[in-house]
Amino acid sequence: MLQFELLHTDPHSHARRARLTLNHGVVETPIFMPVGTYGTIKGVMPRSLEEMGAQIILGNTFHLWMRPGLDVMAQFGGLHQFERWSKPILTDSGGFQVWSLGEMRKISEEGVRFASPVNGDKLFLTPEISMQIQTTLNSDIVMQFDECTPYDVKGHVTTEPEARQSMELSLRWARRCRTEFARLENPNALFGIVQGGMFENLRQESLDQLVAMDFPGYAVGGVSVGEPKDEMLRIMAHTPHRLPAHKPRYLMGVGTPEDLVDGVANGVDMFDCVMPTRNARNGHMFTRFGDLKIRNARYKTDERPVDETCTCYTCAGIRQSASSAGHGGFSRAYLHHLDRCGEMLGPMLTSIHNLHYYLNLMREVREALEAGTFGVFVRQFKADRARGI
Amino acid sequence: MLQFELLHTDPHSHARRARLTLNHGVVETPIFMPVGTYGTIKGVMPRSLEEMGAQIILGNTFHLWMRPGLDVMAQFGGLHQFERWSKPILTDSGGFQVWSLGEMRKISEEGVRFASPVNGDKLFLTPEISMQIQTTLNSDIVMQFDECTPYDVKGHVTTEPEARQSMELSLRWARRCRTEFARLENPNALFGIVQGGMFENLRQESLDQLVAMDFPGYAVGGVSVGEPKDEMLRIMAHTPHRLPAHKPRYLMGVGTPEDLVDGVANGVDMFDCVMPTRNARNGHMFTRFGDLKIRNARYKTDERPVDETCTCYTCAGIRQSASSAGHGGFSRAYLHHLDRCGEMLGPMLTSIHNLHYYLNLMREVREALEAGTFGVFVRQFKADRARGI
Repeated sequence: MLQFELLHTDPHSHARRARLTLNHGVVETPIFMPVGTYGTIKGVMPRSLEEMGAQIILGNTFHLWMRPGLDVMAQFGGLHQFERWSKPILTDSGGFQVWSLGEMRKISEEGVRFASPVNGDKLFLTPEISMQIQTTLNSDIVMQFDECTPYDVKGHVTTEPEARQSMELSLRWARRCRTEFARLENPNALFGIVQGGMFENLRQESLDQLVAMDFPGYAVGGVSVGEPKDEMLRIMAHTPHRLPAHKPRYLMGVGTPEDLVDGVANGVDMFDCVMPTRNARNGHMFTRFGDLKIRNARYKTDERPVDETCTCYTCAGIRQSASSAGHGGFSRAYLHHLDRCGEMLGPMLTSIHNLHYYLNLMREVREALEAGTFGVFVRQFKADRARGI
Repeated sequence: MLQFELLHTDPHSHARRARLTLNHGVVETPIFMPVGTYGTIKGVMPRSLEEMGAQIILGNTFHLWMRPGLDVMAQFGGLHQFERWSKPILTDSGGFQVWSLGEMRKISEEGVRFASPVNGDKLFLTPEISMQIQTTLNSDIVMQFDECTPYDVKGHVTTEPEARQSMELSLRWARRCRTEFARLENPNALFGIVQGGMFENLRQESLDQLVAMDFPGYAVGGVSVGEPKDEMLRIMAHTPHRLPAHKPRYLMGVGTPEDLVDGVANGVDMFDCVMPTRNARNGHMFTRFGDLKIRNARYKTDERPVDETCTCYTCAGIRQSASSAGHGGFSRAYLHHLDRCGEMLGPMLTSIHNLHYYLNLMREVREALEAGTFGVFVRQFKADRARGI
């Protein structure tokens, strides 16, 4: 099941404010989706995710297939109960992960043969198997199995004929996914993925054929695969707004806060990226006024929170009750110290902040779209971020 | 400031239920104190500590002196504000840590010379410097600087003359600590530490002389230093109950759940140990019905919580509000999976459980003492723990 309700559209861009209803709940868009590869957003408790307003999270089909494996997933009736997350979940198809294995995998018309990176087992992933796994995971949004067209392979930039071949394979796999998804009577929603590399004509062909297949939602894949930034921005400006207006649009694996705001202006509704959590673990923090590297010696004695305008547990603490006064609301100096000592609490607190930053940014975007002030918002956002912390 | 109020005493053992009032709040004893070496209980947020009922936590003077250093501590006005913990804190003296440096340190009458394990700097720690550091940390309970008498050195078991020499040095340092603590006008409470190795006559001498100095509280040190378990139990049975009844008694660095209950029966009020958190990070979990190694393959598909009688976030989740239904309350299978994948959430959740187990055990001990049923409680506790999970 998937319902998509368009609530507001920005007259000066392709931005839109919408509402997505899935089997496990409602998602207000534009939205950022935290990535929970192995059934956990790294270093973050489900309760923290809920508190920071996460509405939908990701799981990685490939990883969950490897560990804990489908037997465990089936026993728990899916990923929700296993990881104790009651709101919507989106799973990828495993295509990107097998693609990432590089020379360890062999792609054919039928599917992808590869050796398990966990135990070396010979494995085979096909559109049908991906649908079967995702049906077991019972994710609210299932992604088609696709071949992620590389930007380059060992310095050889993918040519148009190569990108076409790859894109056409993904289209054939899209049809097989749709057939298998229906056969399995999966009650959730299957998204098609637009490929076509950096070639706008191929993107258009892919998009047209997927739209003809009438998926309940569409993603733009094959970006954030090592291409130069301006190439990514060109595809982001080209493809999303050409997708059907009455269906959700998901830009896969993107990106920086600026990329998200640009993506919304180009008509994207949904984003995912490991950047907030991965960067957090390296002490790279996002703030309203630019990015901050907590390892910098200048923070050793800095009593201020990471972002004085932020309301997350890390920056502002919990202020609801008198009894918990003084809990949370940590200084840059403390986070610097935790990082220096390799203390686990460091990445825990920085991950909470960065995810909260991304989710709050999308909340502000939604509010601006509702108020009809998206253009003003974008200018202020860019000026604030450029100011520097 | 320290007030100690004896509320109940068990007629069949040395166990007592008491209340300790310190500058940052009240501590109901018997109590377990989580260890926060570098200004953080490893992997646990302050809010989680508060929720599980932690009343007082430890900080390690030696570590905090190394990192972040006294300049930062002074700027924050102490450890409480730095780590955002508003309840009482106890700091050790640094004596145990410099002792642990082994051949890297040289002990004299004046103090201990050693090389910083962080940057190799030549450092000198004395009773006076320890008092100065702990005054800067502003901990509610300050421990005297002592020499921790080793059980053995490279297989040579400490002889009585050696233990005497060490114990007498600690007594002279106790006097110097008291003088410096007074000179600094430290508003908190200074505890003396009974030493004497495994020799009961020396323990009695140390105790008598410390009591003559009239400290507001006393610790039993020099246990959990590598001695056989029965030696530790012998000292635990000998020393604590001989300390003044109207003052708090703290057994340092002990121990297993069984040790804590035995310690209470022997008149101990306060415990600290890294075991719940360190073991948690290795997948060793404490439960009412014995210990559980989450790495064991038998837990791969086990849908039960770690301890079905436990009310912690990990085992029971949060049930207060309808909106957070389904958050927390994780299965053994999920914790097994997190451990196998090396996911940070694993040690986060196991640490919460183990600390909650220790704190809850002491809560049950306090309730039994109040109800006059401590003997019954101890028998049931031992039978339950021996049952096995």
